[in-house]
Amino acid sequence: MSLPLAAVGPVADTLTDLFVVLLAAKLGDELFRRLDQPGLIGEIAAGAIVGPAVFGLVEPTETLEVFAELGVVFLLFWVGLETRLSEMFEVGRSALLVGVLGVVLPFAGGIGLAFAVGEDTATAVFVGVALVATSVGITSAVLLQLGAIRGRAGRTILGAAVIDDILAMLLLAVAVGLGDDDGVDVTAVLVTVAMALAFVAFFTLGGTRLFAQRPRLLHSPQFSESPLLPAVIICLGLAAFAAHIGLAAIIGAFLAGMMVAETKEQHPIEDEVAPLYAFFPPFFFAFIGTEVELSEFADAETLGLLAGVTILAVVTKYVGARLGARGLPSAEANVVALGMVPRGEVGIIVAGIGAAAGVIEDQLFAVIVGMSVLTTILIPPLLRGAVAELGEHRGSPSARA
Amino acid sequence: MSLPLAAVGPVADTLTDLFVVLLAAKLGDELFRRLDQPGLIGEIAAGAIVGPAVFGLVEPTETLEVFAELGVVFLLFWVGLETRLSEMFEVGRSALLVGVLGVVLPFAGGIGLAFAVGEDTATAVFVGVALVATSVGITSAVLLQLGAIRGRAGRTILGAAVIDDILAMLLLAVAVGLGDDDGVDVTAVLVTVAMALAFVAFFTLGGTRLFAQRPRLLHSPQFSESPLLPAVIICLGLAAFAAHIGLAAIIGAFLAGMMVAETKEQHPIEDEVAPLYAFFPPFFFAFIGTEVELSEFADAETLGLLAGVTILAVVTKYVGARLGARGLPSAEANVVALGMVPRGEVGIIVAGIGAAAGVIEDQLFAVIVGMSVLTTILIPPLLRGAVAELGEHRGSPSARA
Repeated sequence: MSLPLAAVGPVADTLTDLFVVLLAAKLGDELFRRLDQPGLIGEIAAGAIVGPAVFGLVEPTETLEVFAELGVVFLLFWVGLETRLSEMFEVGRSALLVGVLGVVLPFAGGIGLAFAVGEDTATAVFVGVALVATSVGITSAVLLQLGAIRGRAGRTILGAAVIDDILAMLLLAVAVGLGDDDGVDVTAVLVTVAMALAFVAFFTLGGTRLFAQRPRLLHSPQFSESPLLPAVIICLGLAAFAAHIGLAAIIGAFLAGMMVAETKEQHPIEDEVAPLYAFFPPFFFAFIGTEVELSEFADAETLGLLAGVTILAVVTKYVGARLGARGLPSAEANVVALGMVPRGEVGIIVAGIGAAAGVIEDQLFAVIVGMSVLTTILIPPLLRGAVAELGEHRGSPSARA
Repeated sequence: MSLPLAAVGPVADTLTDLFVVLLAAKLGDELFRRLDQPGLIGEIAAGAIVGPAVFGLVEPTETLEVFAELGVVFLLFWVGLETRLSEMFEVGRSALLVGVLGVVLPFAGGIGLAFAVGEDTATAVFVGVALVATSVGITSAVLLQLGAIRGRAGRTILGAAVIDDILAMLLLAVAVGLGDDDGVDVTAVLVTVAMALAFVAFFTLGGTRLFAQRPRLLHSPQFSESPLLPAVIICLGLAAFAAHIGLAAIIGAFLAGMMVAETKEQHPIEDEVAPLYAFFPPFFFAFIGTEVELSEFADAETLGLLAGVTILAVVTKYVGARLGARGLPSAEANVVALGMVPRGEVGIIVAGIGAAAGVIEDQLFAVIVGMSVLTTILIPPLLRGAVAELGEHRGSPSARA
């Protein structure tokens, strides 16, 4: 069996990767649900098992990364579809406080820890930024499964995640400037942040109003097909736009979802988006698993640093977000604070930028990746308990529930 | 605006590519439908316009190629969902004759033409193979839109395409062996063909029977979700398997669709697969457009060769398939023969293998790519006319119709 069908190879290999990852994720999801654990942890574990950490059946290739990115994009698009702007305004003040305080404490804590272990200023600022950014995908998936995404705590988390991402972008720009020979370009940083704010404000206020007043933009009887493709095109367009101005792509996808949610025929759209939301997100969770490199943690020093950074990341984010949410009842503030803890892919991206800039060396990179994965795995079980205490099983059931 | 957010760039660029291609394809599709032309030609034209041939907004990147491949995989999976095995057996004899004669004539014609313009044996055999393989994706999309895929002509085309692909694989293996220093490994070729036949027979007979008798494999009440992911996993698995043994991935996807179609609750599955079938195939058609390189056809000699090869490709395939279908009524035989003409991506893949092996030089490669695109664009309007004459608007309407 050695026919030299060279050009057929890449197609077969890519299809095999997608098959193996999706099958493993599905099995992990089913198994963890039967053990009464969050399915997404099963998907992450499945990624680790088929990935380099255990069997090495798949590598985290560029194609799998694209599918992972679309996974979290469609996840937040779905969350946006379940969110109404008017409900977001109700939690505006809490969300702002949670976002700001949930950034300040981890940032300060990360810088302090880095200085304490002898890093220089450029590296310390990067560590601070890597501890800042919440990955709202994980929490969204858990709250969707529990039907709690539209509750007050869920909405506060979503609003805070937008604030959080804008602040993280600002701090990242500063960190990159400090690591660069040219220093911080204050004008460029301010212009970028102003553009990010303008982007969010324009599409949140103008976009939702436009679609609320003109639902036929999506549901025109002149379209020969369903509104699915127009909706998906808006989602991809805003995600790409957000990424180009330095925000997370998922912020754009979330805003796109909120815009589309304003059209009157909301439910048929959700039925049609549901299969994309079932197909792509498992790649996101499994991809996190494929990025785990257990061999990096063979020595006690690295393990100790990992424990320290992870505890710091959990405590500073929890305390900061909880302080920000002190206007809410205690049980809700607990859900909000826990929900902000997972760092997921965002911490990994920041560490990757730092590594590319030469200010984050291998050991620190592995530690930040490990912290991101650990905060991601630890929180879902705790969050389920906190939501159960809330007695807040509101909202519509999810297609993935 | 030059913040050095290096690691954010690839995500933004990939999302932008997907956004631009999907938006362009949707606009091309809508425009061509309003002009009463086949939508997929509009999607191919849109790919050419945003691609290198005109504006150069997107390149045919690896990611777009993966999406294109999944596009044709989900297209044939959908076709399989609309196909019942018992209906395929009714057309078995005609399909076999169409497949065999539709391969023999183009192969002989291609070799003859290549010798006539002075090519050597190795190159001539490659040209013959490049003229052989039908791309059933194009014809399937047209027949689905017309609701004619389940008619006798549609089923004959699908069956013939399976035969066609097995023969093309056999001839390609021979061609690669002739271009190789080690010569043709007859044992390896026979083993490969035997495996392909065994694969098709096993999943066609055993797979459909298994699912017909045990629909709960997909629709188990124990699954916490819908049968969508299990069905998609089967599709990706058989597509990858087919590609690994040297068949086209779409053959595996088609067989997977037929297997899933045997489960009793067929319609919910179709509703859930429909969004994937709406999302991915536009990338397949637009990708064909991005591969067009008009600059290659600046001289009269290349243009003349293109015209000669294209006419030969159309005439030999039409005549061969028409002869094979002579047991059918004349109007149906016409639909079958026209439907086998598009070469689409298969001719391009064969030419690419020949180029990699050093037996297909640049001019010939461009001509084969041009022939593949031309046969793909020319046929849909003719096919629509032929189906209209048939008065055979049977079958279920398509989600893309």
